[in-house]
Amino acid sequence: MTDFAATKAMFDLPAGVLYLDGNSLGPLPKAAVARVGDMMRQEWGEMLITGWNKAGWMGMPTNLGDRIGGLIGAEPGSVVVGDTLSIKVYQAVASALDLSKGRRVVLSDTGNFPSDLYMVEGLLRSLNAGYELRVVEPAAVADSITDEIAVLMLTEVDYRTGRMHDMKKLSQQARAQGVITVWDLAHSAGAIPVDLAGCNADFAVGCTYKYLNGGPGAPAFIYVAPRLAASVRPALSGWLGHETPFAFDLNYRPGAGIERMRVGTPPVIQMASLAAALDIWDMTTMSDIRARSIELTEMFVALIEETCPQLTLASPRDPHKRGSQVSFRFEDGYAAMQALIARGVIGDFRAPDIMRFGFTPLYIDEDDVRQAAAIVSEIMQTRAWDRPEFKIRQKVT
Amino acid sequence: MTDFAATKAMFDLPAGVLYLDGNSLGPLPKAAVARVGDMMRQEWGEMLITGWNKAGWMGMPTNLGDRIGGLIGAEPGSVVVGDTLSIKVYQAVASALDLSKGRRVVLSDTGNFPSDLYMVEGLLRSLNAGYELRVVEPAAVADSITDEIAVLMLTEVDYRTGRMHDMKKLSQQARAQGVITVWDLAHSAGAIPVDLAGCNADFAVGCTYKYLNGGPGAPAFIYVAPRLAASVRPALSGWLGHETPFAFDLNYRPGAGIERMRVGTPPVIQMASLAAALDIWDMTTMSDIRARSIELTEMFVALIEETCPQLTLASPRDPHKRGSQVSFRFEDGYAAMQALIARGVIGDFRAPDIMRFGFTPLYIDEDDVRQAAAIVSEIMQTRAWDRPEFKIRQKVT
Repeated sequence: MTDFAATKAMFDLPAGVLYLDGNSLGPLPKAAVARVGDMMRQEWGEMLITGWNKAGWMGMPTNLGDRIGGLIGAEPGSVVVGDTLSIKVYQAVASALDLSKGRRVVLSDTGNFPSDLYMVEGLLRSLNAGYELRVVEPAAVADSITDEIAVLMLTEVDYRTGRMHDMKKLSQQARAQGVITVWDLAHSAGAIPVDLAGCNADFAVGCTYKYLNGGPGAPAFIYVAPRLAASVRPALSGWLGHETPFAFDLNYRPGAGIERMRVGTPPVIQMASLAAALDIWDMTTMSDIRARSIELTEMFVALIEETCPQLTLASPRDPHKRGSQVSFRFEDGYAAMQALIARGVIGDFRAPDIMRFGFTPLYIDEDDVRQAAAIVSEIMQTRAWDRPEFKIRQKVT
Repeated sequence: MTDFAATKAMFDLPAGVLYLDGNSLGPLPKAAVARVGDMMRQEWGEMLITGWNKAGWMGMPTNLGDRIGGLIGAEPGSVVVGDTLSIKVYQAVASALDLSKGRRVVLSDTGNFPSDLYMVEGLLRSLNAGYELRVVEPAAVADSITDEIAVLMLTEVDYRTGRMHDMKKLSQQARAQGVITVWDLAHSAGAIPVDLAGCNADFAVGCTYKYLNGGPGAPAFIYVAPRLAASVRPALSGWLGHETPFAFDLNYRPGAGIERMRVGTPPVIQMASLAAALDIWDMTTMSDIRARSIELTEMFVALIEETCPQLTLASPRDPHKRGSQVSFRFEDGYAAMQALIARGVIGDFRAPDIMRFGFTPLYIDEDDVRQAAAIVSEIMQTRAWDRPEFKIRQKVT
């Protein structure tokens, strides 16, 4: 069994803060500052350009990819790190469409993260070949998977409510209809067990700054099923995805397997921070994380429902149907979240009325849950949120 | 006049190394480690998710963009930082093609960096609409600009030889033929004066890890002429390029001006390093840099030609026709460069026979040039490169 006191001790958490927003940006691993400093001084500073080989920078995207792959049930050599999640969505869907010639519909749902839909919208407009992005309600996805669909693109865990799609079942259904799947694991990787290989998923993408704690702007990752990797023709055909990048040929030839999903120069400083963050995952397993996450979210839901009748649970009540977050609807949710943040309980708000709380067993324990719930109750009972300064909308993330 | 001893003192340069490869990866600015450490501890660690607003992370891509803009003659508000150079090339060419409906040819040259050609190759294949990538010899570019051309995409300074295109003249010629220009400034930004606004350039892209010293994997930048920015329909339509990213609308609406060229979450840790590096540019001007660069390259060429008859100048002899690097052809250039690196003179090799030396006035002075030239002479005169261990090819960058 994981020693969660030990994992919590690996993070620098500010005093007086109950951080329930690790689903948006994970906190600072204590080892990350030194790791990044060492990389900058000893590798960049000392090795200069030779760091690409000597310090192994060039291999980091696949090395880190394999470590993330271990958390999401991916085969070795099937995941590579780089770019942003939006770029990886584009890359995955473009590749999937290229493989599914003839069909013209990308199916997604209203629970998908908007950027995923935006990227596909831009892609399909560019392709200008009669493609359609069909966006249905989450509950209607299963019935919409027909042999007309080229690509099914879904985020497994809804960013607002935490509702989970049944990845195994939907992937199976898609496969039976000849539909290629692209799964966004932004709120899955490090939050819930994922079994990409077991689900026969085709493509998956995700980010590393949420549950994986890689830091603000940490790179994304992409998974391509090994059975497909050799057939993928990358739309974003960059030199580090070339078979022989340093031959400087004028024509592109895709690299072997997942290497071809690399594009440009990888962000070495961000990757050093991510590497330090991933070390913490060696102290636990996804099944321990999941069991603990369910305990924590169940406890929070019970405490809030007992004391805050104004808040309505927006997440599925069955913990097996939600990810590692709990959301409540409240008309003045924006102001209430500002009031909570002022009291040190950091969750976030998602329009129009969602108060979102993430539970991350690596560094959140029962005491944190009890304290956070007590502060939520107090804010709601005293209407402490009903003050003008909490209602001024800023850009929020 | 710039105090170049003072700028040199801003860098951590390893003892015993003469670093003539800042055109590939700039060295570590002394302030960068502390800046990154402070950002990680005081911003990420303390502010957590609120750092996006409180620490100004969200504004960094345009703030840094404006600072880079000042070095390349761009109008304020016309440059944004993010992604990699390959992605920015894709974004620029896709946008340019969208603006130039009807025409079907992208013109480039064999002196372009291969990744730029690869990205366009992948883009045109995806578009599948009869587009052609026409790659001519550098000397043939001017005569190939006709009204059949949709987009002229060139790297201003040849990465192998340092040969410069006449950006002003070619841009004018393109404009007269209704051709949209995309300039890659990878070897220009921080190396030579660039006047994007004065040239009436349409798009430009570049990286920040070469002459700008942002660090390995530092983000790229993109410029869109203000007269075009409002008409650009981004192909890579990500949420941070949306008019109101945090409204989480299901449909994409491009943000104002250059903001629409943002895609996903920006790399905050890399940007902190880049910010520290850009501070050094406040101590100089591009005209001082250029004058000094010409002095240094002229000196190096004279010393090498005097003592190394085996080496043939591959760069233009006229310093006004080359960037801030000098290249020599030598049949055993790979081995010779390995021998030089073993002696502390770091340049690089580019297939098939180019030995490349970058001169970066911020931290390279006359003494360095004299010492480096003396070591090159010695290596060539003693045939010190003619040893088996220098001939084993590794991945080089």
